Amino acid sequence: MSMEMLLAAKNARRSVQALGPQGSSRVLLKLASALRSNADTILAANAVDLERMSPDDPRYDRLKLTASRLDQIASDVENVASLPSPLGEELSRCVRPNGMVIRKVSVPFGVIGVIYEARPNVTSDVFSLCLRSGNVAVLKGGSDALCSNEAIASVIRSTLESEGVDPAACTLLPASHEASDALLGAVGIVDLIIPRGSSRLINYVRDNARVPVIETGAGICHTYFDKDGDLQKGALVVNNAKTRRVSVCNALDCLVIHSSRLGDLPAICSELSGSKVHIYADPRAYAALDGHYPQDLLERAGEDAFGTEFLDYKMSIKTVDTLQQALEHIERYSSKHSECIICENPETVRVFQETVDASCVYANVSTAFTDGGQFGFGAEIGISTQKLHARGPMALRELTTYKYLINGEGQIRRP
Amino acid sequence: MSMEMLLAAKNARRSVQALGPQGSSRVLLKLASALRSNADTILAANAVDLERMSPDDPRYDRLKLTASRLDQIASDVENVASLPSPLGEELSRCVRPNGMVIRKVSVPFGVIGVIYEARPNVTSDVFSLCLRSGNVAVLKGGSDALCSNEAIASVIRSTLESEGVDPAACTLLPASHEASDALLGAVGIVDLIIPRGSSRLINYVRDNARVPVIETGAGICHTYFDKDGDLQKGALVVNNAKTRRVSVCNALDCLVIHSSRLGDLPAICSELSGSKVHIYADPRAYAALDGHYPQDLLERAGEDAFGTEFLDYKMSIKTVDTLQQALEHIERYSSKHSECIICENPETVRVFQETVDASCVYANVSTAFTDGGQFGFGAEIGISTQKLHARGPMALRELTTYKYLINGEGQIRRP
Repeated sequence: MSMEMLLAAKNARRSVQALGPQGSSRVLLKLASALRSNADTILAANAVDLERMSPDDPRYDRLKLTASRLDQIASDVENVASLPSPLGEELSRCVRPNGMVIRKVSVPFGVIGVIYEARPNVTSDVFSLCLRSGNVAVLKGGSDALCSNEAIASVIRSTLESEGVDPAACTLLPASHEASDALLGAVGIVDLIIPRGSSRLINYVRDNARVPVIETGAGICHTYFDKDGDLQKGALVVNNAKTRRVSVCNALDCLVIHSSRLGDLPAICSELSGSKVHIYADPRAYAALDGHYPQDLLERAGEDAFGTEFLDYKMSIKTVDTLQQALEHIERYSSKHSECIICENPETVRVFQETVDASCVYANVSTAFTDGGQFGFGAEIGISTQKLHARGPMALRELTTYKYLINGEGQIRRP
Repeated sequence: MSMEMLLAAKNARRSVQALGPQGSSRVLLKLASALRSNADTILAANAVDLERMSPDDPRYDRLKLTASRLDQIASDVENVASLPSPLGEELSRCVRPNGMVIRKVSVPFGVIGVIYEARPNVTSDVFSLCLRSGNVAVLKGGSDALCSNEAIASVIRSTLESEGVDPAACTLLPASHEASDALLGAVGIVDLIIPRGSSRLINYVRDNARVPVIETGAGICHTYFDKDGDLQKGALVVNNAKTRRVSVCNALDCLVIHSSRLGDLPAICSELSGSKVHIYADPRAYAALDGHYPQDLLERAGEDAFGTEFLDYKMSIKTVDTLQQALEHIERYSSKHSECIICENPETVRVFQETVDASCVYANVSTAFTDGGQFGFGAEIGISTQKLHARGPMALRELTTYKYLINGEGQIRRP
């Protein structure tokens, strides 16, 4: 059954691409209003999902929809409707010596598959970004959110039908392993798969997909406080990167500190104790903090304190004697997501930004800004941690590819 | 052993990136001269490979090096040395309302793996493109070319050493399946794999790689002669696309003809008989050609005549009654490489170019131009047939990714 659904999704491409920028805006505005007017049905479906999950489950809050959350979901769809279309942009143009004109233009991928877990808002987010970028969306949500996803997808499909668009443009696959495997193997049908969720999900997708994948997610993020770091800026940035929202991928995991600044470590960490951040410190950092940080929140770092994405009020500290050692520590443990240096020396900043291999390399700015909205993209479908095609925050432009259009008057190639 | 070699390759990244544009040019010019001065050694190694292959093997000619071919290989390296560096380009720059500056700059991937078959020139071609784009090259050639590849790689590594560059920047893996599998699974070590060769090789790589892959190669190419096509241009373009070089991926495989122009089919095909092109025609095309094309070169098309990459003096012909039917035939059988329309009606051309989903969509120009050199890229590492990251001819720019550099004065995100 999944294969038939995938083929139907592929066939819906023309219908989506025929919409054009104005058409996709119109459909999305209509969808936002349909989501609001169908709020009761969607919330009832969500209640069924919630009943099957314990309220103590950490996923319960993410699964839960309320009238105000649903209103936000509709507003997000309206926002995507208002974003500039990424399609039909002439990326380059040249006239070759033989007179033929080569244009490189942005076009949709075709069919984009997204595999995600228990967040029903992803269903409408992904669909709206796909439609606005001219793509068919094939969605594979988690079984926890089955009823919620079906209710939202049903509103989407009714809206599409009422606007004369093939409803397979929003294809929600069954929440089964068989459906996942069909999607991962759909070479020639699906053009791109984006997994969103836990490392376990992402690893499964990468290891089993035959369709091209963009990996998102895991962020093991460092901030390096250099010998030339400004204390006040550093304390602000470290506290913000660690405590603004601990459950997100751009949150700080490891503070790397130059040994000459260990005396400032208590001041750098002072705000963290207010949020009850548990610190795993290496020997020199431990000695520097001992007596200056709440004893019950301070622990000696084991080796597993480094290279861990905590997603919690926890942070490790590594002491280094040189910039080079800092770069090596980051190189070893970074997931290439977001890395930062606190430093007033422009040459050190230059070397750090040039050397660190990550999507986003910050100087004196909190890593909390790694986000499509904060980057001015107007939305976000995920944060890529690989290097192929898109890196860092991805929005509409990253959901397009290009093709070359070559026009001439009978040019042939010799010899 | 392969894993140690891969880790050594990863460690060579810094050494390559430290070279900068002038350094990589210098190393490549030195390499070109070393390839010339070591010609005897390389040709002797090639002779050992040739001895193990029958001269009747179709791969023999591709494997064979001569003094003049080696000189061409050295010239190609010099050419790459002269191309503009694709690194450090500021792709975009913005200042956000909070004052932080976000720059998007082009950077190397890091480590690029290339798996190829019996063409020893690929060894130096790939290495030079990788070095010029700041990347380490991990090469896995075919066992047929083992001695030739080792001889060329040895010259490359000596040159690197003499220039103070880590010789692991050119890592030639053993020609074993174990080496292939280590490369395909090297997540976190190798950033990108490009397979070059037969469909069998490419499919194996796609199906087994855990590292991101750019597929290259297979071209099932169509030219559609529309009802508004110009006879003279069409005949020239069809003949050139089919016969210029039949063994290349941009060669024409299937002529799609509008039924109203069947009367012109003998004229369109007249030049093809001179090259002894074997035609597989559908019933209406057969009837149109019968008596007007050499009987021994004309055959009725079976279903396998369509969707086949001939790589030979063979071509199929499909008759359609509408543009829509032509688009459907191409959609069904195209490998999304290079497609062409012969047509004087701008609106028909527009619809064709907009609708056909391929890397390169031509109007009144031979598909033989799908080539990095012909597109003005100065070189080519392959032609991508997928949509992620790079599509169509790939050269230096396509061997780079980007990162975001964010600079500020202590900006934090609220709430």
